[in-house]
Amino acid sequence: MTHHRPVDGQVYPRFEGIRTFMRLPHLAEAERLAEADLVVVGVPFDSAGTYRVGARFGPSGIRHESMLLRPYHPELAVDVHEVLSLADAGDLPVTPGYLVESHAQIREGAARVLAAGVTPLFLGGDHSVSLPLLRAVAERHGPVALLHVDAHCDLWDGYYGGKDTHGTPFRRALEEGLIDPARSVQVGLRGPVYGPEDVSLPHHLGLEAISADVLHRRGVAATLERILARIGGPGPRYLSFDIDALDPAYAPGTGTPEVGGLTTVQALQLLRGLAGLDFVGFDLVEVMPPYDVGALTQLLAANVAYEMIALVAVAKRRAA
Amino acid sequence: MTHHRPVDGQVYPRFEGIRTFMRLPHLAEAERLAEADLVVVGVPFDSAGTYRVGARFGPSGIRHESMLLRPYHPELAVDVHEVLSLADAGDLPVTPGYLVESHAQIREGAARVLAAGVTPLFLGGDHSVSLPLLRAVAERHGPVALLHVDAHCDLWDGYYGGKDTHGTPFRRALEEGLIDPARSVQVGLRGPVYGPEDVSLPHHLGLEAISADVLHRRGVAATLERILARIGGPGPRYLSFDIDALDPAYAPGTGTPEVGGLTTVQALQLLRGLAGLDFVGFDLVEVMPPYDVGALTQLLAANVAYEMIALVAVAKRRAA
Amino acid sequence: MTHHRPVDGQVYPRFEGIRTFMRLPHLAEAERLAEADLVVVGVPFDSAGTYRVGARFGPSGIRHESMLLRPYHPELAVDVHEVLSLADAGDLPVTPGYLVESHAQIREGAARVLAAGVTPLFLGGDHSVSLPLLRAVAERHGPVALLHVDAHCDLWDGYYGGKDTHGTPFRRALEEGLIDPARSVQVGLRGPVYGPEDVSLPHHLGLEAISADVLHRRGVAATLERILARIGGPGPRYLSFDIDALDPAYAPGTGTPEVGGLTTVQALQLLRGLAGLDFVGFDLVEVMPPYDVGALTQLLAANVAYEMIALVAVAKRRAA
Amino acid sequence: MTHHRPVDGQVYPRFEGIRTFMRLPHLAEAERLAEADLVVVGVPFDSAGTYRVGARFGPSGIRHESMLLRPYHPELAVDVHEVLSLADAGDLPVTPGYLVESHAQIREGAARVLAAGVTPLFLGGDHSVSLPLLRAVAERHGPVALLHVDAHCDLWDGYYGGKDTHGTPFRRALEEGLIDPARSVQVGLRGPVYGPEDVSLPHHLGLEAISADVLHRRGVAATLERILARIGGPGPRYLSFDIDALDPAYAPGTGTPEVGGLTTVQALQLLRGLAGLDFVGFDLVEVMPPYDVGALTQLLAANVAYEMIALVAVAKRRAA
Amino acid sequence: MTHHRPVDGQVYPRFEGIRTFMRLPHLAEAERLAEADLVVVGVPFDSAGTYRVGARFGPSGIRHESMLLRPYHPELAVDVHEVLSLADAGDLPVTPGYLVESHAQIREGAARVLAAGVTPLFLGGDHSVSLPLLRAVAERHGPVALLHVDAHCDLWDGYYGGKDTHGTPFRRALEEGLIDPARSVQVGLRGPVYGPEDVSLPHHLGLEAISADVLHRRGVAATLERILARIGGPGPRYLSFDIDALDPAYAPGTGTPEVGGLTTVQALQLLRGLAGLDFVGFDLVEVMPPYDVGALTQLLAANVAYEMIALVAVAKRRAA
Amino acid sequence: MTHHRPVDGQVYPRFEGIRTFMRLPHLAEAERLAEADLVVVGVPFDSAGTYRVGARFGPSGIRHESMLLRPYHPELAVDVHEVLSLADAGDLPVTPGYLVESHAQIREGAARVLAAGVTPLFLGGDHSVSLPLLRAVAERHGPVALLHVDAHCDLWDGYYGGKDTHGTPFRRALEEGLIDPARSVQVGLRGPVYGPEDVSLPHHLGLEAISADVLHRRGVAATLERILARIGGPGPRYLSFDIDALDPAYAPGTGTPEVGGLTTVQALQLLRGLAGLDFVGFDLVEVMPPYDVGALTQLLAANVAYEMIALVAVAKRRAA
Repeated sequence: MTHHRPVDGQVYPRFEGIRTFMRLPHLAEAERLAEADLVVVGVPFDSAGTYRVGARFGPSGIRHESMLLRPYHPELAVDVHEVLSLADAGDLPVTPGYLVESHAQIREGAARVLAAGVTPLFLGGDHSVSLPLLRAVAERHGPVALLHVDAHCDLWDGYYGGKDTHGTPFRRALEEGLIDPARSVQVGLRGPVYGPEDVSLPHHLGLEAISADVLHRRGVAATLERILARIGGPGPRYLSFDIDALDPAYAPGTGTPEVGGLTTVQALQLLRGLAGLDFVGFDLVEVMPPYDVGALTQLLAANVAYEMIALVAVAKRRAA
Repeated sequence: MTHHRPVDGQVYPRFEGIRTFMRLPHLAEAERLAEADLVVVGVPFDSAGTYRVGARFGPSGIRHESMLLRPYHPELAVDVHEVLSLADAGDLPVTPGYLVESHAQIREGAARVLAAGVTPLFLGGDHSVSLPLLRAVAERHGPVALLHVDAHCDLWDGYYGGKDTHGTPFRRALEEGLIDPARSVQVGLRGPVYGPEDVSLPHHLGLEAISADVLHRRGVAATLERILARIGGPGPRYLSFDIDALDPAYAPGTGTPEVGGLTTVQALQLLRGLAGLDFVGFDLVEVMPPYDVGALTQLLAANVAYEMIALVAVAKRRAA
Repeated sequence: MTHHRPVDGQVYPRFEGIRTFMRLPHLAEAERLAEADLVVVGVPFDSAGTYRVGARFGPSGIRHESMLLRPYHPELAVDVHEVLSLADAGDLPVTPGYLVESHAQIREGAARVLAAGVTPLFLGGDHSVSLPLLRAVAERHGPVALLHVDAHCDLWDGYYGGKDTHGTPFRRALEEGLIDPARSVQVGLRGPVYGPEDVSLPHHLGLEAISADVLHRRGVAATLERILARIGGPGPRYLSFDIDALDPAYAPGTGTPEVGGLTTVQALQLLRGLAGLDFVGFDLVEVMPPYDVGALTQLLAANVAYEMIALVAVAKRRAA
Repeated sequence: MTHHRPVDGQVYPRFEGIRTFMRLPHLAEAERLAEADLVVVGVPFDSAGTYRVGARFGPSGIRHESMLLRPYHPELAVDVHEVLSLADAGDLPVTPGYLVESHAQIREGAARVLAAGVTPLFLGGDHSVSLPLLRAVAERHGPVALLHVDAHCDLWDGYYGGKDTHGTPFRRALEEGLIDPARSVQVGLRGPVYGPEDVSLPHHLGLEAISADVLHRRGVAATLERILARIGGPGPRYLSFDIDALDPAYAPGTGTPEVGGLTTVQALQLLRGLAGLDFVGFDLVEVMPPYDVGALTQLLAANVAYEMIALVAVAKRRAA
Repeated sequence: MTHHRPVDGQVYPRFEGIRTFMRLPHLAEAERLAEADLVVVGVPFDSAGTYRVGARFGPSGIRHESMLLRPYHPELAVDVHEVLSLADAGDLPVTPGYLVESHAQIREGAARVLAAGVTPLFLGGDHSVSLPLLRAVAERHGPVALLHVDAHCDLWDGYYGGKDTHGTPFRRALEEGLIDPARSVQVGLRGPVYGPEDVSLPHHLGLEAISADVLHRRGVAATLERILARIGGPGPRYLSFDIDALDPAYAPGTGTPEVGGLTTVQALQLLRGLAGLDFVGFDLVEVMPPYDVGALTQLLAANVAYEMIALVAVAKRRAA
Repeated sequence: MTHHRPVDGQVYPRFEGIRTFMRLPHLAEAERLAEADLVVVGVPFDSAGTYRVGARFGPSGIRHESMLLRPYHPELAVDVHEVLSLADAGDLPVTPGYLVESHAQIREGAARVLAAGVTPLFLGGDHSVSLPLLRAVAERHGPVALLHVDAHCDLWDGYYGGKDTHGTPFRRALEEGLIDPARSVQVGLRGPVYGPEDVSLPHHLGLEAISADVLHRRGVAATLERILARIGGPGPRYLSFDIDALDPAYAPGTGTPEVGGLTTVQALQLLRGLAGLDFVGFDLVEVMPPYDVGALTQLLAANVAYEMIALVAVAKRRAA
C-alpha cells in the first residue's frame, strides 16, 4: 500500500505549494481512497444556515491555514505521518440552494469514502451536513455513539416550516435511528434559547448535555469523565465538532456565535482526553471564512482537525 | 393622505435613530402601504448564489448607509420628500435554504405591496429574487420592458441541475412571458463566460445587450440613446440593477465580481439619463455586506436606490 | 397594558427586519413608554472621549448584533419576554461636539423615560453620558448605590482643562451627591495610571475598588461577595458597565483598551451573580463599532444588555 | 540657515525610523520654525464632525504613509528637498470635546507658525479647523483667495443649534471677512443636499462653485481655467482640501463620503495645474484612519500633501 | 497528447475543490509538463522587497480568486481551454531570506519548465524574481523584447548596498544582455523618484518609457501604437506585469503603491491590444495578499493572468 | 544628567504628537544615549521568517499603540518616569533581504547602544535578530542567562539549507557560547513539531523547557518558581519575548501562530513575577502589524514592553 505523506516543510517552505490539507496528496479518484488510513473531505454546503452564511468556503479556508501543521504531536507523542497514510480527497459535490438534492449528494459521496474502508474527516459546510453524513455512517456501521461539541443542541424540530436546517440535524438523526442517544453526549451548550423546553430537550430525547457553564465551573477533567462514561464503551463512535463551541474571541468566523464559550486550551484538553478511543468518523463544521478575522478560526479549525487525526493515530498505534 | 417624511437631519444627527431606509417611517402593516407613493422593501433571500453568499444582509446594510442621504437631488432638481410620500415597509418573509418556498413568499409579499398601488423599490437578496418579483409585477401590469444593469446576462438555463439560481431569473421570466424582450435591454455585461453561445444568448432570446466594453468605448450618452430607443416607448417598465455592474473597486461587496466594470460616475449618469421615464418597480440586488470593505458597496447602493427614488419623483412631477 | 414582544425568530428569520434592539417594537413617542417595563434607549454621544472616538455608533451596532438573542435565559431560568414588556425607545437627541448642551439633552431625555415609570437600559455613547444619566436618576430616586464595572475608575478631576470627559463622570457625580460612595463599588480596574494617588483615589473618595488583578487571583465568587456586601442593601441601585472592563481580545472595539481584563465568562458569572437585586437603571458604554473586529464587541455588548434585562426579569418575578 | 532634509531612503530603508512626515526633522520648538521654508503641522481636532468621527488620527496616519514619498517630482520637474528646507512641526495642542477652546488653541498655534515666516501645511482633523486656521492666516495676510476642494460647500449656517461644525467653517469665515468671495472657488461639490437653496448657496454668498458633475463632463483642463481665472490674480491665496472630494473608492477613510467624486488622476491633474501660483497656506482635512481600508486614503493624502509641497517649491524656484 | 481542462464550473460549483489555478490539473512532475501548452507556475519569493513584504502568498491568493474565471473570452472570441492544454505546475522551491540561493533555484526551476517546450506564466513573488526568470528565458530564447508594465522602472543600481532588490532586476538584466533594450518598453511609470536622473534612466539605458501621466492624457490606443512599434517585430517577446501599475484603488494589495495609476479598464484594453503577438513567457508580480482588501488585487491578478493566457490562445490559433 | 520624560498625557492629548515610544524624546545621536537609563530601539529586520513576514513594521506599530501607556504601574507600585530616564533611540539600520549584512549591522548598532551603558529594549523584527543582539550583549557582559518566552524553541539547526532563520537563533547562540544553558529556560512551547527529537531538543542542549501545556496545568506561580530557580542567580540575564507565546486570540498579528497559548493575564503575571531581577537587555519580537486585527497585538506588545521597563525601574529602585 502506498503510504502517503505531505511535502516536507523543512525542505519546501510551508507557504509554498497547492493548498491541500497539510499539503497531502490529492486523491481525486474514488478507487485510490483505500491507499489512505484517513482522508480529509470537504463538504462545502451552507444553504441551511439560519443567520450568517458562508461556510461553503470552510474547507478551502481550513486547508489554507493547515500549512502550519507539523507531523509530531508532543502531548500525545505521536507522529501522524509515521502511523497513518493520510490524503486529501477534495470536496464532495453539492448543489447550492438545493437542500434535498445536496443532502443526497453528500450521503452518496460519504458512502463512497466509507466503502473504501478509510476513516473520514469531513470539513463543513454548515451543521446540516452532519445529517447525510450520519446516514452514510450508520448505513455502514449501525447507530453510533455521538460526541457532539457545540454551542447549540441542534435538536430543534424545524425553522419557518423547514425541517432541515443547521439547527435540526440531530433531531432528524435521532428520528432515523442513526445515533444511539444512550451513548451520546453534547458539550458546550450555552446562550439564550427559545424557551425552557429547549434546555431539557437533550435529556428529553435521551442524550446527555453538559453546558458550557458547567464545564467552566467543574473543569475539563470532570467533563471528560462524564463524556467517557457515556461514549467510552463498545460500538462505533462519531465526533461532530461545531467550531462555535469555542468562544467568539477564539473563533469569530462562524454563523451563530455565542459568548461565554470554550477557550482553545479547554478544547484541546478535551480532545486530547479522548486519546485511546477510536472513532468511525469526524466532522468539523460552521467555519465561515468571510466572517473570520486574522484567519483565527481557520487556523484553530486546522488544529482541531489535526487533533482528530492524532486521535486516529493513537488508536491505531494502540490497536497494533 | 399622510405624507411621510424622514427625521430631519439638521435637527436630529444623522448617526441617530432606528435604521429604516433614510430613517423613514416603518410601515409594517400592509393596510397602511397606500399611505406612500413609494416604499422600500427588503427581500433578504440569498440561497441561490453560486459562488459567494451573504446578500441576506443587503437590506440592513443599505439601510444603515442610507443615513447620509439628504432630500434634494441637485442634478435632477427635485426634493424627493416634497414630491413623494416615502416609507420603509420592512422585509418580506423568506425561508432560507428553501428556494421554491421562498420564491412563493416573495411573490406573495410583492403582490401585497403592488396591490396597494404603491411603487416598490426592492432591496435584495441575490438576483434570483427578480423572478418572483417579476411574477408579481407582470401579474399586475402585464409583461414589462426590462432595463437590466448587470455584469452578467443571468439568462443561463441552469446550474448543476438547478433551474433557479441567481444566474437564471431572466431566462425563466422570458419563458413565462413576464418581460417583453423586444422592449428590453441589458447593460454592463462583461467577463469570461462558458462559451461563444453565451455571448449571443441575449440576442438569441430577443433582448439587446450592451457590454461594459462597448459602454467604455462609446460613452454613456451613446449607451443611453440605445437604452431609451429600446425601453422608452409606452407600456410598463421595470429596472433591475445588480450592483456587480459596477467595477469591484467601487462595489467590492458582491457575490461574483467581474473586473472592468462601470465607475460610479458612469452609473450615476446612466440612471440620471432615464429621468422622465416612469417605472412600475425597481430592484437592487447582490449587495453582500460580509464581503464589503469600508461599507463602499452599501453606501453606493443606498445612492443607487436614491437615484431610483428621484426618477419616480421626476416622473410624478412631470405627470402632475 | 400592551405587553410588547419581539418578532418571532422561529417564524421570521433573525437576519430580517428593522434593527431595533431584539426586533422589539419601536416606541418613538414618550407617552407610550409606560407600556413597557424596560426600554432600551440609545445615547449616541461621544465627544468626550480622550483617545479613540466613535461610540456614537454604539447603539446601532449593538442593536444590529442583538438579532441573535433569544427569549429564554437558561442559567437564570427566565423568559424575559414572558415576564417583561420590552421596547426600544430609539435614541436620545444630542448635539455632537457640544458637551454641555448634549448633557442637558441627555438628562432631559432620561428624565422623560424615568417619568414613565419604566426601567431604562441606556446604550452609550462614551462614559461621559453616565453623568447626565445619573443626574436624572438621582433626581427621581435619590442618591444611588453604584456598581461600576470598568478598566478605569473614571474619577479624574479633569483633562487638559476640561472638567467633563469620559474619564471624569463619577468624580462629578460624587461632588453632586448623585451616588452614595459607601454603597458603591468599582470592579475591573487595571492598567498603568498617572501616579500612585490614582490607585488610592476610589478609597479616598469613599468607594471600594476591586482591581482586575485581584479578581483574577481571588475569583469571581469572592468578588461577588464583596460587591453584594457593598451594594446589596436597601436603596436604589444603578449599574454602569464600560465594555473595556473586558479584555481587548473579547472586546476590541472600545476607546481606551487595557490588556489583562475580564474574560466573557468572568463577566457573565459576575452579572448572573447579581440575580435577585433590583436596579433602577443601567448603562452600557464605550462600545465603538469603527474599532470593532468581527463584530465581537457589539455581539458581546448585546449579550451584556440581555443579562441586564434578565436581572430585571428575575427581580420582577421575585417581587411578584 | 539650516537646510533640513529627510533621512535618505536609498541608505536607510523607508520602513525604518520615527514617523515624522517624510521622516523630516521634528522641529518641536517654535523658535526653530524659521529654519524651514515649509512645515507640516498636525491639527488633530475632530469633535465637530456630524456623522463619522476619528480625524484626530489623520496626522499620524498621513505621516505613516508618507514614508513612501521620494524627493523628485517628475511632472513638475522639481526636487522638493533641493528647493525647500522642510520640517515637521508636530501637532498643535487641542482639547477634544471642547470646540471653542480648541479653536482658540488652533488659532494661536497657527499664528505662532505663521509668525516664523514659514509656509504652513496643516493636516486635520475635521474641516472645522479651517476656521481658526483662516483666522490666523487672515490676521497675518489679510483676506485670502480660497480654493476649496470638497464634496460639500461647508457653508451651512448651523446644525442642531450649533454654529461651529465641520459643515460651517466657510460661512463663518465669510461673515468674519477672512476670505474674499470674489476671488474664491469651490470644486467637487456633489451629492444630495437639504434643499435647492443649498445649491445656490455658494453663488448667493459670492463664491463660484464647480460641481463634480460639471468637472466630470467638461474635464480638468476647463475646470482649471475657471479656477485660475478666479484665484490667479494678485493677493494671498489659500488652499483647503477635503479628502472627500475624491470618490470613496479612492478615499474611503473619511467622514461623510459622497459617491461620484474625483479620481486620483483628476485630483493630481488639478493640483499640478496650479503650478506657478504661490499659496500662503494649505490645509488637508477629513482623513479618518479608523475608516480607511488598506491605508488607501492615508497614502493618497500623503501624496496630496506632497503635491502641495511641490507647488511651493515651484513657486519659490520661479520667484528666485 | 493529453489535453488538460479544468473541472466544469456548471457541474461542480466554483467554490469547490482544491485551489489550483482555475482548478486545472496539478502537474507536479517535471516530466509531465510537456502535456501542456501553457503552465501556471508560482514563484513565492519576496525577500527582496524594500518596503512592504508578503508577496510569497501571491500565488496561492491568485489561485484562490481564479475560481471565478470561465473558459470563453468574449472580446478576443477565444475559448482558452479549447485552444490550449493548460495546467498548474505548482510553485518553484525557494529559500526565504536567501536571495542568491533563491535566485539560483528560480532560474533552475524556470529552465526546467522551459525545457519542456511549454509557455510559462509565472506568478510572483516580488519583482526581483524577474531577473532569474529572464536568465532562464534568455538562455533558451536569446535576448528578449520586454514589455514591462509597472509604476516603477526597476532599473535602479542598488539599495543600501544591495545589488539585488525588487527595484533592480531590469538593470541587472540589461547588464547581462538578457533583454534587448531597443525592442523594449516600460508603461505606467509614475510617482516621485529620487532625482531627475531617474526620469531619464530608461531612455539612458536604451529603453522607451511611457509614463502613466502620458497614458492618461493620450489614451490607451496611442500608447498601444508606441508599444507595438517597439515590441511588435520578430524575435522573442516577454511580458512582465507588476500589479502596482494599477491604481491603488484597483490594486491595494501590493508593496509600493503609487497613486494615479491605471484603471482596470485601461489595463484590460492594453492587454487585449496585444492580441496576435506571441510571447515566450510572462510574469505577474508584487501581488501581496496580506495587504489586499476584499481580495480585489488577487481577483484582478487572476484576470490579468487570464488575459495573458488568452493572448497565447489567440496567437496559437492564428499560427494554426 | 538629563532626565528624559514623555509629553504629559493630561495636558497634551494622547492621540497627539510624533509616535516615538510613549512619546519619549528621540535620541537619534549615539553620543546622547548615555542620557538615558533605558532606551527603546527598533530592529526592523524580517527577512528570516519562514512563513508569514512583515515584522519590519513591528517597531512603528508598537510605538503607535504605546500612546496609551501611563507612568505609574499599580501592581509593581513604580512610576517608571520617576525612577528612570527613558528615551527612544529610533531604529537600527538593516538591509532587507540581506541576512548576513543585516545581522552585522544589528550587532554593531546594538554594541553602540550597550557601549553607552544604557539598558536596551529591542523591538523586532523577526526572532533571527536575537542572534546578533546576543552577540553584542555577550561581547559586553559575557554569556547570559536566557529567559526565552515563545511558542517555539527556536533551536532548529536550519531550514531549506539556511542556517540563519527565525527558527534557529538560539542554536547558533548556544554554539557560539553567548548564552549559558544551565541558567536558561524556555517557556510557552507548544504546537506540533517535526519529530520527537524536537521535544527533547532544549533538554538535550542543556536548557530547561516548560511547555504551555504544563504552564496551563500547573499555573503561573509554579512556573515562576522553576524560572527563578533557573535564572535567578548571579550573572547577567537577558529576556527574549516572542509575542507568539500568547494565544492567537490575544496576539493574532504574528508570523507562526500556535493555538493553545498564554492569555494576557498569564503573561502579565509571569512578567511581574520577575520583579526584583535585573536584566542586561530585552527583546520583543515577531509583532507583525499587517496581520494584526484591531491593533490587539501591537497594543499588547506595547504593554509587554512597559512591563519590561517596570522591571528595570524596580530593580534600579531596589539597588538604590
